[in-house]
This record gives sequence, structure tokens and C-alpha cells, in this order.
Amino acid sequence: MIRFENDYSEGAHPLVMAALNETNLMQTPGYGVDPICDRARARIRALCACENADVHFLVGGTQTNATLICAALRPHQGAVAAVTGHIAVHESGAIEATGHKVLTLPSDDGKITAAQVEALLQAHWSDTTHEHMVQPGMVYISQPTENGTVYTTDELDALYRVCREAGIYLYVDGARLAYALESEACGMTLPELCARCDAFYIGGTKVGALFGEALVLTNDAIKRDFRYILKQHGGMLAKGRLLGVQFDALLGDGLYFEIGRHANALALRLRAALEELGVSMRYDSPTNQQFPILPDSVLEQLKENYAYSYWERVDETHSAVRFCMSWATTEAQVDALIADLRALLQK
Amino acid sequence: MIRFENDYSEGAHPLVMAALNETNLMQTPGYGVDPICDRARARIRALCACENADVHFLVGGTQTNATLICAALRPHQGAVAAVTGHIAVHESGAIEATGHKVLTLPSDDGKITAAQVEALLQAHWSDTTHEHMVQPGMVYISQPTENGTVYTTDELDALYRVCREAGIYLYVDGARLAYALESEACGMTLPELCARCDAFYIGGTKVGALFGEALVLTNDAIKRDFRYILKQHGGMLAKGRLLGVQFDALLGDGLYFEIGRHANALALRLRAALEELGVSMRYDSPTNQQFPILPDSVLEQLKENYAYSYWERVDETHSAVRFCMSWATTEAQVDALIADLRALLQK
Amino acid sequence: MIRFENDYSEGAHPLVMAALNETNLMQTPGYGVDPICDRARARIRALCACENADVHFLVGGTQTNATLICAALRPHQGAVAAVTGHIAVHESGAIEATGHKVLTLPSDDGKITAAQVEALLQAHWSDTTHEHMVQPGMVYISQPTENGTVYTTDELDALYRVCREAGIYLYVDGARLAYALESEACGMTLPELCARCDAFYIGGTKVGALFGEALVLTNDAIKRDFRYILKQHGGMLAKGRLLGVQFDALLGDGLYFEIGRHANALALRLRAALEELGVSMRYDSPTNQQFPILPDSVLEQLKENYAYSYWERVDETHSAVRFCMSWATTEAQVDALIADLRALLQK
Amino acid sequence: MIRFENDYSEGAHPLVMAALNETNLMQTPGYGVDPICDRARARIRALCACENADVHFLVGGTQTNATLICAALRPHQGAVAAVTGHIAVHESGAIEATGHKVLTLPSDDGKITAAQVEALLQAHWSDTTHEHMVQPGMVYISQPTENGTVYTTDELDALYRVCREAGIYLYVDGARLAYALESEACGMTLPELCARCDAFYIGGTKVGALFGEALVLTNDAIKRDFRYILKQHGGMLAKGRLLGVQFDALLGDGLYFEIGRHANALALRLRAALEELGVSMRYDSPTNQQFPILPDSVLEQLKENYAYSYWERVDETHSAVRFCMSWATTEAQVDALIADLRALLQK
Repeated sequence: MIRFENDYSEGAHPLVMAALNETNLMQTPGYGVDPICDRARARIRALCACENADVHFLVGGTQTNATLICAALRPHQGAVAAVTGHIAVHESGAIEATGHKVLTLPSDDGKITAAQVEALLQAHWSDTTHEHMVQPGMVYISQPTENGTVYTTDELDALYRVCREAGIYLYVDGARLAYALESEACGMTLPELCARCDAFYIGGTKVGALFGEALVLTNDAIKRDFRYILKQHGGMLAKGRLLGVQFDALLGDGLYFEIGRHANALALRLRAALEELGVSMRYDSPTNQQFPILPDSVLEQLKENYAYSYWERVDETHSAVRFCMSWATTEAQVDALIADLRALLQK
Repeated sequence: MIRFENDYSEGAHPLVMAALNETNLMQTPGYGVDPICDRARARIRALCACENADVHFLVGGTQTNATLICAALRPHQGAVAAVTGHIAVHESGAIEATGHKVLTLPSDDGKITAAQVEALLQAHWSDTTHEHMVQPGMVYISQPTENGTVYTTDELDALYRVCREAGIYLYVDGARLAYALESEACGMTLPELCARCDAFYIGGTKVGALFGEALVLTNDAIKRDFRYILKQHGGMLAKGRLLGVQFDALLGDGLYFEIGRHANALALRLRAALEELGVSMRYDSPTNQQFPILPDSVLEQLKENYAYSYWERVDETHSAVRFCMSWATTEAQVDALIADLRALLQK
Repeated sequence: MIRFENDYSEGAHPLVMAALNETNLMQTPGYGVDPICDRARARIRALCACENADVHFLVGGTQTNATLICAALRPHQGAVAAVTGHIAVHESGAIEATGHKVLTLPSDDGKITAAQVEALLQAHWSDTTHEHMVQPGMVYISQPTENGTVYTTDELDALYRVCREAGIYLYVDGARLAYALESEACGMTLPELCARCDAFYIGGTKVGALFGEALVLTNDAIKRDFRYILKQHGGMLAKGRLLGVQFDALLGDGLYFEIGRHANALALRLRAALEELGVSMRYDSPTNQQFPILPDSVLEQLKENYAYSYWERVDETHSAVRFCMSWATTEAQVDALIADLRALLQK
Repeated sequence: MIRFENDYSEGAHPLVMAALNETNLMQTPGYGVDPICDRARARIRALCACENADVHFLVGGTQTNATLICAALRPHQGAVAAVTGHIAVHESGAIEATGHKVLTLPSDDGKITAAQVEALLQAHWSDTTHEHMVQPGMVYISQPTENGTVYTTDELDALYRVCREAGIYLYVDGARLAYALESEACGMTLPELCARCDAFYIGGTKVGALFGEALVLTNDAIKRDFRYILKQHGGMLAKGRLLGVQFDALLGDGLYFEIGRHANALALRLRAALEELGVSMRYDSPTNQQFPILPDSVLEQLKENYAYSYWERVDETHSAVRFCMSWATTEAQVDALIADLRALLQK
């Protein structure tokens, strides 16, 4: 059985594990105030070309989103997201559990536009009963999205402009950030991202770490007392060093970006092979997740040897599914999948 | 510099790291539903002699406490704890953030008694305006406490009886459980603990794991839909296998208990040496944390070579401090500390 | 200026005011445990033919909804509502502030169907990642809806059946209940309503009271400790007698239902006149709210003498607006409105 | 039976009822934006000599406290209060339900001092683990306190100075404000109060209104978007005019202060008589609540004809109880009570 159902099926990239092993006996203070965390933070600030950013390390994505949104919003505000956004659908109500509504915008491919946000803000403020409604206080997007699609620098720019004009925050969930940054379709650098939002995170869990997300805060208003809120949300790891070590290993020598390129290349290899076989893609994803539309009969047979994620029904005999590539995926695994899919499709 | 300020200064016990390294390339489903987690859960049920228990793995203690309490209480209920309890003092309001008050009872040594709980319940229910007050819905204790002290089986028995009679839960925070179970003063086994509460956790972070707590639910009312609440609180680790691997390594061959004995022995070695030197202890701790009362002048000099936790002022020239022992603490380190303390005290 | 923009523009029905005046100097215990509240509760139980119901009096609708939903749901559950439902749109996030998501279903006329609820439940439980999503724990409907439309007994029956089969609650917001019960299109009695849901409220604020809602709980699981949660949500009025007096006056002699008939009749009079003039209605409302689609030019002139609620744009030159009738609306006021509308439309 | 158990046993002062009756048929917009509310707000600003204050009307005290505290604090902050404070004891966890801890200070008479607050702030900020604790974000006091005692202008001044220096809010619960302002021991005017805190409320429920509290916000940081949070907490009354009418009647012609003097005078009459009889007072209250310590045998007989509030046991045969005076209490009622107490005590 080869597992393609997500990008966190294995442990950490060997270089990350090596760093954890090497530092295992080192004695450090807890809670992320050790020298290795400091070094990782400095690296991130340098890579982002943003010396004033605050960097906090958390364990997972849901925790990171809930903590950041809770810290940023006032009680009557909500976070605007695509109807398919992770906070809208896949966090068991973690945002609502902190008291905030997720205000959704329609989206077919996981992205939302500046025009949509502008219209929503306009609708809110022009309504004479707006005090009876949740006030939009932030826009949440994922880069890449849950559907593998990416925002270009221009698109992000437009979103950030709308947000600043309205005095609300723009927050970017980068659970799979490496795959966006290393995608040609995206063409965005870390400093470009960092300059176009109030907060974002560099995802580790889905890009070669055992676990861990590096949250970058650029807006001073969000920075204040953040560590209290981190602790309150159970996000302050006792052996905080573990997070610093991993990000230090991932970012010190370009490994993070290399993983992004590796997984993207394998994903595009799969996509090209499938398109050659006449298979359509549910989303136009240039990143490590691919969503082919396949006959149910093929999927049924495929699952004997491959794990994939079921996505959604497309018509009576076809479904969209997801295949993910990670640092651990090999060319051989992808080629095996392609060969088996070809055989099944041509039967 | 030798660090005694807590029991999570280093990484994981070598056997735990070895298990993580060995399984690093294994492909598993995420979120704790993999075979290794299942094996670790089975081990825990067997060690607790409780086949019906549900076992969930979480990353850290604050997260575990907030998730369990949120799952167990109705909105108008609070958790009763010692005024020094971890949830009362050291979780940045994590319990209140889920909407629940921590109802505190006075305590000098970190313990609370069945009689105190009974009196509080009696006071609540006999007050004609009790609907205007937070209803006690659970008793929270730590075994051992934040002060290193332990509950005997009889004491736990009495607390559980009072709770059952009142129809409220008893929850035991076992962040340092191994140190209590392996302490002669405690004399409690895992099955004895498990039979005397509605939920408890076997702490990993402070007992040799990189991170991780194993929450054991014995009361059916708390079990229902627990994984939703786990996810909502950011406590469902994507690479869930990591938690299973660690508890499997810790519990498979008695390592967890061995670590408890090792650290307790070193702690008692320090205590004996200090008492011989005429030093008093702030608490009568039979576990891995010791709280000597030392002259401020000695502490000032000591901190050049040793990290310890400042606890509280005792009089104008003395303070209580905390020294912790862990799996990684060596006899040589403790003896160096003893020698230096002896020299400083006898100057 | 004549105000039709809502059904709470004036104070209380004169008989309600008279009862408040008569009892003003009476000394009673506070918080709703006085003899007049008890009498009002007994009346409600009798009118509902439900001797086991618990009745609680609250001040307003948002408070009632938030308190009930908070009392009924566990932390990971959400309330299913029409996308236009009051809790989804017009309560400033009051439900989310108690930690719960509002799960919305599409609706054009304010109603949702048993089939929609069934499909949503099916989608939730058949998703293998359902633990990552908010669990539907309750269905919330309004009778009549915010659009003036009503559920028939059969429709309610079907909804309740789906809810019971799934083990979730059905809660009915009766802010304007009298107008539904007295509408021929609805044809539902209080006992019929009461037997087909787990909780509902008899709205007073919009039906002749100064303020006040009578919440009726029929499901034992919700009843427990409800007064604590009432107090916690600021819903326990100190001079609780005021609520009992008003509901006693409204329900003692049929006044509540008479107000419903009075306002419905005036609303249908307006509707008939407008339809005769060729005006379409945005919703097919048989109750006290009417939503004609009128030319913007007419609305512009109309607002010099009449207050109405702007509802939504229909096309480039037409908008839907709302006219509400209440106990205080007179035939003369409606006829004046009709005459002026006729003149404006025929210009 | 004469009821002295609280100051909200009757309805509203006749002049308040008259104003409600007179305006009953007036048509106004809802939610507190009508001309009468505006007039009442203007009166309050003038009486407070604070033209920049924002004034919001709410229905009850618990709601007012929870709404204000929720609006003012960030998620990791708590409200500092006397251990006997209303928010600490008598609101069923309403503050915790908004996510905030109540940080308590010891108090025997209901008051807390600037020195206590300073020490608590000092302890928080000097603790190296303060990020693991709830940050004090506000001081909450009651004027008068739940024990009838009052803060002098100097005492309030000192508290406000400490708060401003620490950058935290001072909020004054004025549920019974008239009784403090009209007490000679207090000697504070509304402008003096208003200039020494960030927010306070002028209580109506316990001073002659049917219900209602007027919240005065002087700190700009709290004012922003307050009406959203008001609505979210169920505190925005649909027929908002009712609150404006009552405060307009209470404050237009000095009635509010007159009620304060009336009830205080009767309370002091009772106190003088009891002290003459050798009865001690549990608290030194110069306001409308008196707390004599009486023999249990006397209390047992007294309750056949008088309702009072049981306060606490003092010794094996004596208890402290509370007698409250209100606008409705008559000299004859107090004299009857005195006569009966005298007879019982002298038996």
C-alpha cells in the first residue's frame, strides 16, 4: 500500500530528524525562549526581509489559526473566508469556540477575490442594521488553498489593499506554503508575502517537520501580549526547543524550499500523465496536491494498493479524489501509481 | 551550567528517540487512528486493568486540561481545584477561555481533602441563591501536586466517594504521574488510580517523552464525541503516530516507571543531603521535585552554575526554590549540586 | 409619520399596561419565583396541554435564543438554520459568542425542509472526517419565519421526525408566534406545536408586551439547571414579576391570540389592496409582515409620511420592503397607507 | 408580611410608571435610537459634567457587567475584584462565560484598596512566568459595595491612579449608586465619580426603575463598536425607548437622588434603633442596606412577618442578616420592624 492521501503520512525529513537527535541531550529553558528558537526566529526574519516581525512557533495548524484569530479580533468581529476555507469547514468549530463567526464567501477553487471582500464590506457597512450583524474584522486566505490553487502577488496585493482601506487584517494560512512559493504559477517570494499581510504562518507539519508551524506577525497591534494567548490556547510547547530545531533545520540551508520543489515536480508529473490519458482535473492546481476526476470503478480497484483522499462526487459515475506528494514521496511511487492508473483507465 | 529548573530541559529518553527514528519512514493515516496508536492504547488499557477506558493522546498538559474540562462540564459548571492548582494559576486562563470558572479551595501543600470538597458542595447547595453562583461540576487534582506532594489511595478514595455522591466528576492531572506512582509515600498503582476517578492523564512531556499526554477516560458520559472536542481545541496532532510511538516505547517495557524511580531516587538523595545540612523543605515532597528553603545569599551564588526555579519568599533572608530531577539527570550532576551547596552553606 | 417598520414601535397593549400598573406596589420575591409568574407558567402549560413543560421568562429574543442554544448543545455542536434565520444573520454573533457555529441551509422564503436537514445530517455522518467538522446538534426554525411565512403542522412533523431519528433537538423561535398560530395557512395550535419540538418560545415583545419571551422546554435533557444558565446569560430579570404579569395578561383571556388575528387581518387587507394594484409580494406571507415589491421612486416619496423597513433590491428600479402590523396598528392607518400607495402607483 | 430582603421587591416609582404610561402609544424606532433615549443620554452627560461620555442603556446588572468587561478586555486578561464582588460570586460565571477570569482580592467589607491592586500588579509583572498567568486588565469595584460600604473620593482617586499607571481600566458597578452618592460618608458627586474611572453604570433596577442600567463610558478605547457587543450579549432592548423614558423620569428632576436619600434615611433609622438595643452591625454601612447581627431565635420568629436576606453565620447562636430599604419602603414599615425587633430582643 502506497499512501498518497495526505502530505503528513511519514515522520520528518531525515535532516530534521538528525537535528532533533543531535540536540536531544542539550539542556535549554522551556517554552520557546532558548537560543535555538531565537536562531530560527532570526532566520525567518531574515528570509522574510522583515526585521520587525514577531515569530512564534506552534504545534499545529488548527491551533495556530484559532490562536491568531482570537488574538486579532474583538468579540463582535468575524473572519471572512472562502466557504471551502479550512477554518470554515475542517476545524470542528475551533474559531467559533473562541467566540467568532466565520463569514463565508462563495468559491469554486478555494480562492476569494478582492472584489468579493470589497462587496461584503460594502454590504455590511451600508446596512443600517449592521450593529445586529457580525462585523468583518479580518480576511483569512490559504496560500496555497485547500484545493491546491495559488494567489499571485497581484491578487494578494489587491486583497491587502482592500483590507487596509477597511482597517481590517489580512491573515494567510501557509500550512503548505513551500508548495505555493515554489510554484511557477504563484511566483511569490517570502518577502513579497510578508509585505502583503498582517500575519501568516510558514507550515512545517506538511513540509517535512515532525510537527510545527512558524507564525509571523508583522502588524504591531497583533503582537502585543501574544505569548499569553499562545499559552491560553495550549499552544506553548514545554520543550519549545523542538520547534526551533526543526525550523532551523528546514530553513537554514534551503531545505524547506527544496521540499516544495520536489513535491510540486512529482505532482505535475502525475498531472501530466493523467491529462495525457484524458483525465480532467477538478482544480487547476500547480502545487503538491492534485485532484483528478476518475471513474468510480477505477477508484474502487485503485484503493487496493493506494491510499488517496475522496474529495467529492462529480457525476453518477465519476468522483474527484486527491493525491498528495511530500518530501517522502519518490519518483518510483508516482510512476507506479501512473502505471496502474494507465492500466485501469485503458481497460 | 546544570539545569534543575524543570523536568523538561532535555529532549526524549534515548529509547523513545530510537522508536521515533525507527518508525520515521513508516506511512500511516493521520490523527491518531494508526496501528501504533492503537497498540499504545491497548497497552494503557491493560496497564490500567480497565478494558472499557477510552485513551486519547494530546500534545501538552494545558491543552489536555482545557479539552477534558470543556468536554465534561455544562456551561454553568466550574472545576474545583486547590488555589495552587495548575488550572487555577498557570494556564493563562485556559479554563476560563472555555467558559468555566475555577472554584478554588485553600491549600498549603497543593492537596485538597474530601472534607473540603464536601463542605464546598454543601455550601453551594444549601445556599438559596445557588442558581446565581457557579455550580461545582468537577474536582480537579494533580497527582503528584505542583508541590511534589502525593495523594494516598485512601485520600483519593475519599475524594472520589464525595464526587460520586454529588454526581460530579473527579479528574486527575498526571503530568508527573510516574513520580507519584513510584513514590513509597503514595503507594498507588495505575489500576487503583483508574478505578478512583472519571478521567486522568499519564503525562509524557515531563517523564521522558519529547511531548505528549495520554488521557484516559473511564466515565462513559465524557467519552462521547471526544475526538470532535479534541480537534476543536487544536489537540489532534496531524502525525498522530508520534504520540503512539512514544507511549508505546515508554509503557511497553516499564520504562515509564523506571524513569519515575530514577528521578525520585535522585531527588531524595538531594533532600537527604540538604536535611543533613540543616536545610528545611518548603513541602514534604517524596517525588522528583524538591523545594528547599535556602538563604538568598547562597541562591545568588548558586545561580552562576545551576538553573533552578524560584518559588517564593519565606522570610527576609530566605526563599524556597525548586530543583527537579528527570530521566536525564545524572548522579554526578546531583552530587555536584550537593557539594556546591554544602560549600556555600558552610561558608 | 406613521411607522410600519416593525411590530415593536409602541409600548404594551393597554390591558398589559393596566396589569403592570395594578401590581406595581405588590411586594414579591425577585427572579421569577413569585406567585404571578407561577400563575402565568400554569396558564402556559395548560394552553400547551403539556403539564410537564418547564416555562422560563426572558426579556428578549436574542437572549432567549443564545441561552437556549447554549444550554442544549455540547461544545462541538452547531445549530442548523436557514441562511436567513435570525440566529444566522441578526444577532451579532450571539450564538458564536457561546462557542457554537450556525450551520446554514439555503432558503428563499425563510423556511427549511425535513429533506434538507436529512441531507445535511447524512452528509455529516457519512464523511469520514466528520470529527473535523461541527456536528449538527439542533435544528432552529422560526414560526413564522423572518419572511412572514409559516410551517404547517405536517412540515413541522416531518422536521421533528428527522430530528428525533438523528437524536438532535428541534427548537422553534416564536418571536411572532401569535401571527403564525392565527394564520389560516398555518393551522397549528399551541398543543400541536408543543408536541412537535423540544423547546420553543412564545414571543411577547412583538405581540403586545413591553418586553418578554416565554420559553417552553419540553425535553427533560434541556430542563436541567436551566436557571443557572439563564442567570449566566443575564436573562434573569430582578423584578421577574413583570414578565409573569405580562404573560398572565396576554394569555389569561385570549388577548395574545386576538392580537394575532388583528394584525394578520390588517396585513392581509394591505396585501389584497396592493395585489389589486398589480404589486407583487417578495414572499407569500399570510402573517403580520408583508413584503411588497415597489418602484424605488414610489418608496422615495412614501418615506416622507411612512416608516417601513428596506428589505432588498429586486431589480434596477424596484425593491422589496417590509410593512409590519401590530396590536397598535389601526384600520385607519392601513387605509391611509393604501390610499397613498394607490395614488403614488397610479401617478 | 413586609419584605425587606432586597430593594427590588416592588415595581417602579410612581413617577416612572407615569412616564411609561404617558408615552405608551408613542411610535419610536427601536433599539435605543429614539429621541427620548437621546434626551436621557444628554441629561446623564450633563449631570456627569462629561460631554464626551457615551451612554448605553441595558436591562440588568449582570448583563451590564458581562457586556462591559467583554468589550474592554483582551482574551488573556482578567478583571480584579473583591472576593465578595458581585462578578466574583453572584453572576453564575457570566464573566467566565465570556472567557475572562475574575482575579480576586481578599476583603472583609466589600472594598479593595489601591495598595492591594498595586501589590497584585507588582506580583504579576515581576513573576518571570507571568505569560502563564491571567493578566490583570481591569479593576472592578461596586459603589456602594455588596456590603453597603462606600468608597470616598480619595479612595477612588488612589485606585484610579494605580490603574492609569498600569494602563488598565477602572470600572465601577453602580447598581445602587444613588445610595452611595447620597451618603454623607461617601461625599462623592457624579462628576467626581465620572472623572475617576473608565466606565461606570447608574443603576436603575434597585433605585426606582422597573428595570434598567445606564452605562457611562468615558474611555474612548471602550466606546468603539460598543453597540455590536451590546446586541451580541442580548442587551439591546427592542423597545429601547422604555429605558430612556425611565432614566429621563429618574434624572430629570432629581428623583434618583431623592430616592437615595429616602432609603438611606430609613436604613440609618433602623441602624440607630438597633444599636441602641445593643445590636452590632456586620458591616459599617452608611447606605440603604443594613446588616445587623441577631440571635437566631429572634430571626426565627421575625420571619413570620418580615422577609429579610440571610447573610452568614457569625457564631453558634447569631447570624448576620440584611435589611434593604427602597423608594417604596415607608417609615411605618421600618417602625413596625423596629418595634417588633425591640420586643423580640427584650424578651
